[in-house]
Amino acid sequence: MAFNVRRVLLGDPLPTAHEAHHRLAKVQALAVFSSDALSSVAYATEEILLVLVLAGTGALQLSLPIALAIAGLLAIVGSSYYQTIHGYPSGGGAYIVAYDNLGVWPGLIAAAALLIDYVLTVAVSVTAGVAAITSAVPSLYACRVELCLLAIAFVAWANLRGLRESGTLFSVPPYGFVTIFLALIVVGLARLVTGSLAPASAQAIPGVEVGVQSLTLFLVLRAFAAGCTALTGIEAISNGIRTFQKPEADNAGKTLIAMVVLLATMFLGITVLTRLLGVAPLEHETVVSQVGRQVFGTGPLYLALQAGTAAILILAANTSFAGFPRLSSILARDRYLPRQLANLGDRLVFNNGIMGLALLASALVVLFGGQTHRLIPLYAVGVFLAFTLCQSGMVRHWYREKGKGWRLKSAVNGMGAMATGVVLIVIVGSKLVHGAWIVILLVPVCLWFFHSIRSHYAAVAEQLSLEGLKPEKWVGLASRRRHKVVVPVSGIHRGTLPALRFARSLSKDVTAVAVDVEPEVTAAVREKWAAWGHDVPLVVLDSPYRSTLGPLLEYLAESDQRKPNRGLAVVVLPEFVTATRWHSLLHNQTAQLLKRVLVYRRGHTAKDRVIIDVPYHLRR
Amino acid sequence: MAFNVRRVLLGDPLPTAHEAHHRLAKVQALAVFSSDALSSVAYATEEILLVLVLAGTGALQLSLPIALAIAGLLAIVGSSYYQTIHGYPSGGGAYIVAYDNLGVWPGLIAAAALLIDYVLTVAVSVTAGVAAITSAVPSLYACRVELCLLAIAFVAWANLRGLRESGTLFSVPPYGFVTIFLALIVVGLARLVTGSLAPASAQAIPGVEVGVQSLTLFLVLRAFAAGCTALTGIEAISNGIRTFQKPEADNAGKTLIAMVVLLATMFLGITVLTRLLGVAPLEHETVVSQVGRQVFGTGPLYLALQAGTAAILILAANTSFAGFPRLSSILARDRYLPRQLANLGDRLVFNNGIMGLALLASALVVLFGGQTHRLIPLYAVGVFLAFTLCQSGMVRHWYREKGKGWRLKSAVNGMGAMATGVVLIVIVGSKLVHGAWIVILLVPVCLWFFHSIRSHYAAVAEQLSLEGLKPEKWVGLASRRRHKVVVPVSGIHRGTLPALRFARSLSKDVTAVAVDVEPEVTAAVREKWAAWGHDVPLVVLDSPYRSTLGPLLEYLAESDQRKPNRGLAVVVLPEFVTATRWHSLLHNQTAQLLKRVLVYRRGHTAKDRVIIDVPYHLRR
Repeated sequence: MAFNVRRVLLGDPLPTAHEAHHRLAKVQALAVFSSDALSSVAYATEEILLVLVLAGTGALQLSLPIALAIAGLLAIVGSSYYQTIHGYPSGGGAYIVAYDNLGVWPGLIAAAALLIDYVLTVAVSVTAGVAAITSAVPSLYACRVELCLLAIAFVAWANLRGLRESGTLFSVPPYGFVTIFLALIVVGLARLVTGSLAPASAQAIPGVEVGVQSLTLFLVLRAFAAGCTALTGIEAISNGIRTFQKPEADNAGKTLIAMVVLLATMFLGITVLTRLLGVAPLEHETVVSQVGRQVFGTGPLYLALQAGTAAILILAANTSFAGFPRLSSILARDRYLPRQLANLGDRLVFNNGIMGLALLASALVVLFGGQTHRLIPLYAVGVFLAFTLCQSGMVRHWYREKGKGWRLKSAVNGMGAMATGVVLIVIVGSKLVHGAWIVILLVPVCLWFFHSIRSHYAAVAEQLSLEGLKPEKWVGLASRRRHKVVVPVSGIHRGTLPALRFARSLSKDVTAVAVDVEPEVTAAVREKWAAWGHDVPLVVLDSPYRSTLGPLLEYLAESDQRKPNRGLAVVVLPEFVTATRWHSLLHNQTAQLLKRVLVYRRGHTAKDRVIIDVPYHLRR
Repeated sequence: MAFNVRRVLLGDPLPTAHEAHHRLAKVQALAVFSSDALSSVAYATEEILLVLVLAGTGALQLSLPIALAIAGLLAIVGSSYYQTIHGYPSGGGAYIVAYDNLGVWPGLIAAAALLIDYVLTVAVSVTAGVAAITSAVPSLYACRVELCLLAIAFVAWANLRGLRESGTLFSVPPYGFVTIFLALIVVGLARLVTGSLAPASAQAIPGVEVGVQSLTLFLVLRAFAAGCTALTGIEAISNGIRTFQKPEADNAGKTLIAMVVLLATMFLGITVLTRLLGVAPLEHETVVSQVGRQVFGTGPLYLALQAGTAAILILAANTSFAGFPRLSSILARDRYLPRQLANLGDRLVFNNGIMGLALLASALVVLFGGQTHRLIPLYAVGVFLAFTLCQSGMVRHWYREKGKGWRLKSAVNGMGAMATGVVLIVIVGSKLVHGAWIVILLVPVCLWFFHSIRSHYAAVAEQLSLEGLKPEKWVGLASRRRHKVVVPVSGIHRGTLPALRFARSLSKDVTAVAVDVEPEVTAAVREKWAAWGHDVPLVVLDSPYRSTLGPLLEYLAESDQRKPNRGLAVVVLPEFVTATRWHSLLHNQTAQLLKRVLVYRRGHTAKDRVIIDVPYHLRR
């Protein structure tokens, strides 16, 4: 039954052989890898404004220089990643680059930063996507958390089914979004130039703190840090080089350039437009939605803008659902995460990673009340930490390789590392009290977690190793052993006889043990034993406290000690299995309890004990 | 650890030999058995008033004639039970009397009615007890549900520890309550006579529906039915005759008379006083509390009254905690309830029954918002159903016995049966829509439940029976079998070698099976097999969908079919057991999953399969 439900929801299992590598043309690849980066224009400008407005609406004019600085940073990081693509043409995530060039710990720090960031990307993208919807349909604002959870569940479900339909279908939202967004900027500027749209000055802003702080350098830096969320997702192409058509690195590099140019244009465009229209942040409507309403009115174009924004943001969340499980499976193979995360599920996706990500992101959304701007201070810390480590690693990479023009390449990546490092410090410094501390705390926790898991696996491997064992010796002992077999019986019936028979086929040293909880039952067992017990002796244990388990465990421990050198200790458990699950609620389940206790118990003696289950199935 | 917590909470286990029968003197016995019956005076009058007030405060004067009718009923039921005591001197609950004399189904109906009623007694007594507290301390009214749950948990805990301290300690609340309650009546009447307390007329009643209905015969009957809750608990003495000192029946009879006289006096007394003082029901304060404040003021005497009321009510709940587990253990022994309810726990009490009762009563309290008057319509239905069946059974009993004066005895019980039967009809008729329907529905559900459980146990006994088996034949087969052994292996290491060795000691027909999920792992297994596998053939199964379990189960099913007549099918499972529970989260747990599936699976073949667990314990 459960299997059928699973099948309808997730589809038939896929054989491993189907894991083909579908290669993407540049136009498709741009759509697949750009949604995370491009979607950030939906909220980055607003985040800048939300900080500046703390110093009054007059401070909003600073948004333009800040946006220009971020565009400059974008160019630097873009060139750095262009070089990473050519340096690691087989695909180099921050984890791999840092691990290879800087060592284990920097690699793990990058991994921790990336994992945290994938979770945040889902939470931020989904809340921002839902904000685009609730801006157009304000009545949905009250149930935004539920909408976010629904969106996460939907994306997780699509990924569990195995989202192979990349390419064509997935190109619609990104290109649609780019088209409508560029149209917004062009139409907006044109209408402003022709005078059909009047530039306004910022007005009273309900639901947003205004002018409670003075305009300090610190505030400007905080605004800059908030805007740096525009850069998130830029690393996606360098992780996915292998899915490009040949020559992979060249195609990937060109796609990266296209993406950076688009991103810079859209980000600067919306910031300029926001300034010229005098738009200020509101609680219940996004900045993009306000600009859209002024430029397009509330007609179909406006609705297309909001729908496109929501769609690309949810697609951005989808990017993490590819990245998080992939990275955790790599970490699991390297034994830094539980083994279960390395398993490819029956739809050829990493089920456990997908479900883990969905749960973590949902928890974040609930904790932060589904509000993008409350999540932003946590965001970008991880991204820039990974950027910095990756770029530093690249510097080392070129230095080690010393190939053609390595000095220039080193210099470019070095500038990237410097720039992102400085920004990282700015981000941490300015957002520390607003939530960045959570990430700063989580990174070492992750490291400790990675380390403990790795040590555990190492300890297990060492304990299981055959080092020092000799195969010959192991054979010799095989059949000469005489096992010491104990059969706990509750009565003599068809449920216990097969167990007794099996026990007798095992060894000559079989003892049946009954616990005297109810005298009448014990008397019946003794009576029947004459006929059915054959040569097996019956031991009846007293149970002053009416426990069945206690006396049995005591007896087994004693019997181990009595003749410690004689054969293996074996317990044969007769167990009648009820026809349906709920029938089993009507029985005492002593056999099952005993089984569980015996498997986990050790320490009495140095020896492990073999547990044999002889089931007898009831038909009704 | 869990065991130590348990020990501190519940005390050391007690040996069976300690189950002594402590006999009670009449004075002690009255205290032990009367709290349920006597405590009902705390709410019975109020319940009458709450119905009458629906026809306006003028209708309240009818409370006195209704109370007199109930006192008359009490006398009839009291005499009936006096006879039951002498007819069943070894203790005859309604279940036993009805079962013996009327047959299985009436017995089970009585049992169902009693079980339901025990749950309701706990819920009603505890909510009424908490109402006595919140009347004195109104600020606690808001958290009455929590207080109720706390009280239930406390009583359940005391019972799980094994409440052996009956007698002296338990005499304090009942006698204290009787003393302060009689003092209330005497002082109240005296102050009214001397004129130091002025009789008032009923005033505006906040929070209670007033005068919304006309005073019909139906309403009067409903008020009578509500007041009949005063009779609940009267049967307690007849259930507990065996704990009286000799001559048991005589002492029990005398105690019953004392209890009935006390109950009638207190019930009539408080009703009269309520009338004379013009007290009407309020939402946040009980009627008894209002009378107490007027008579005693708000000093220590008033507080003693409220404390005494709360104490005896919680003690009344305690009565059910003795009755419910005892009755369900009798039913479990007769196989009408799950076997687990028949087990005496290690503190010599029926743990499962106690916890079941606590859970059910807590659920009721939460469902009904901790309000006594909302629970009352459900109450008394079960009591009077059990009364009627018990008294009818007694008629049959005397008729069958035909002992000295059987005609008179029959007549007395017959009158009891008639009276309680009529009252039952009145109760059901007048309270049906207010909640009695729930009980009317629950009784057949219980019967169906009893019946299915009994059938299941009968089916199991039949299937396990040795009927038709011959001991000789069973012996013959013992050691001549050649088992067909399969060992699933994931790799060759210290965790799998002991299993292989054990398998080889079992049979010559051993096959090791590996599932090819990861080619590198499989290759490693094949390579090591030459040295370590000895004569055991290794079969590698393909797994196109990357599942370990699926191919294994398929292989086992096929191998069963291939040579169905050859020996027993045995699966030997190597399992490495991690040092701590949480370490096991880091492993795939395939062995455990396989074990569970194999035990429950059947149907492929007609045969059951033996499952052998060879654990290897990791030390860290």
